[in-house]
Amino acid sequence: MTDSRTTDLPVTERTRLRRETERGCFDRSTIDAIIDTAPICHVGFTDDDGRPVVIPTIHARVGDTLYLHGSAASRALRRMAGGIDVCCTITHLDGFVVARSGFASSMNYRSVMVFGTARLVTDPAEVATALAAIVEHVLPGRKGEVRPDTAKEIAATKVIALALTEASAKVRTGDPVDEPDDLGTPVWAGVVPLRMVADAPQPAPDVADDVPVPASVQQVLATFR
Amino acid sequence: MTDSRTTDLPVTERTRLRRETERGCFDRSTIDAIIDTAPICHVGFTDDDGRPVVIPTIHARVGDTLYLHGSAASRALRRMAGGIDVCCTITHLDGFVVARSGFASSMNYRSVMVFGTARLVTDPAEVATALAAIVEHVLPGRKGEVRPDTAKEIAATKVIALALTEASAKVRTGDPVDEPDDLGTPVWAGVVPLRMVADAPQPAPDVADDVPVPASVQQVLATFR
Repeated sequence: MTDSRTTDLPVTERTRLRRETERGCFDRSTIDAIIDTAPICHVGFTDDDGRPVVIPTIHARVGDTLYLHGSAASRALRRMAGGIDVCCTITHLDGFVVARSGFASSMNYRSVMVFGTARLVTDPAEVATALAAIVEHVLPGRKGEVRPDTAKEIAATKVIALALTEASAKVRTGDPVDEPDDLGTPVWAGVVPLRMVADAPQPAPDVADDVPVPASVQQVLATFR
Repeated sequence: MTDSRTTDLPVTERTRLRRETERGCFDRSTIDAIIDTAPICHVGFTDDDGRPVVIPTIHARVGDTLYLHGSAASRALRRMAGGIDVCCTITHLDGFVVARSGFASSMNYRSVMVFGTARLVTDPAEVATALAAIVEHVLPGRKGEVRPDTAKEIAATKVIALALTEASAKVRTGDPVDEPDDLGTPVWAGVVPLRMVADAPQPAPDVADDVPVPASVQQVLATFR
């Protein structure tokens, strides 16, 4: 969101690509753009028995920190609040890559994996910053359109921070890469581009007719058009 | 894909919802529909040090089994082939729920979590079934349009199976649920529906002009229109 830097992140044992290394990327501008434009992420952690759990959730980046949030009563949030290892993966699916063989078929995508240790945010100012960033992440400007959070609402919420220090992006773009023997056959190959679009906003039934669609929603419609 | 059953799955310690229980669902028809219509999933597992890793990948369901695949050289596939616990999460994002407060704001979604022990598929017939299902998962009919996989391609691929025995769906639909005190304020609230669309297919540069867009791609265009 803010204070974006474009320093390259170090390549670690976990983020180094062993295969298809041309798809790997460690520069912060690429990583940040993927994070900032994805509505949701999938966060992985282990349960009390060490077994993996993956949940979809909204995220927001503020500078070098990725924030997650949820109900203070949530099992996942309580577990992460304990300071465990997490992996937060953010994926944009950009297209189906239709090759001349099943084997060469693929997808175009942009994804980021962030590895780190979850930190429960307890400083009230940082909690407020994180919660505002999460609202603004999908609805830019919304914080200025709604009332502030109440103390009760803040108490019912847990915020988790993840330092953006060990992360990598992986990106595939472009045409299928077919086997040389398959070229020249009368089989169609190419890419079917995919994107997320927003349809016309549906007002809640209790919204008065003279209340206009706000700027934040207009912004979403412009982004996902 | 095939042989879909609609039996309810048992509620386990891992799949039981503690909160928002009205969003939980254990019936196979709901679970199967979410799995079958999502192009990708996010699979979580632990690395050699017990730390979580989450990767995006294509999946396919055949009856009571979820299949994943990848390069035989991939770290993730080699790790899963060892029969470890995995959690495969499949998410459709259906809309932004714009409430009159940040706290009540939400998203509409349909998601499934499948928990289980990964099984490396070694039976050649099951490998063939799984690989065909994975191609057909996003491109229905494509198997009949391309040549069969070669022995070399099959040897270069690992297929992982996950029994669909411990799984649950979580679904949120509809309007924001605002605090009573926020109703009647001149703040817009509602839902911005989201969906994935396909744009015009882009033929690879080496496809002859007289090769038509195949039925499988036409099917994708009809699905993501």
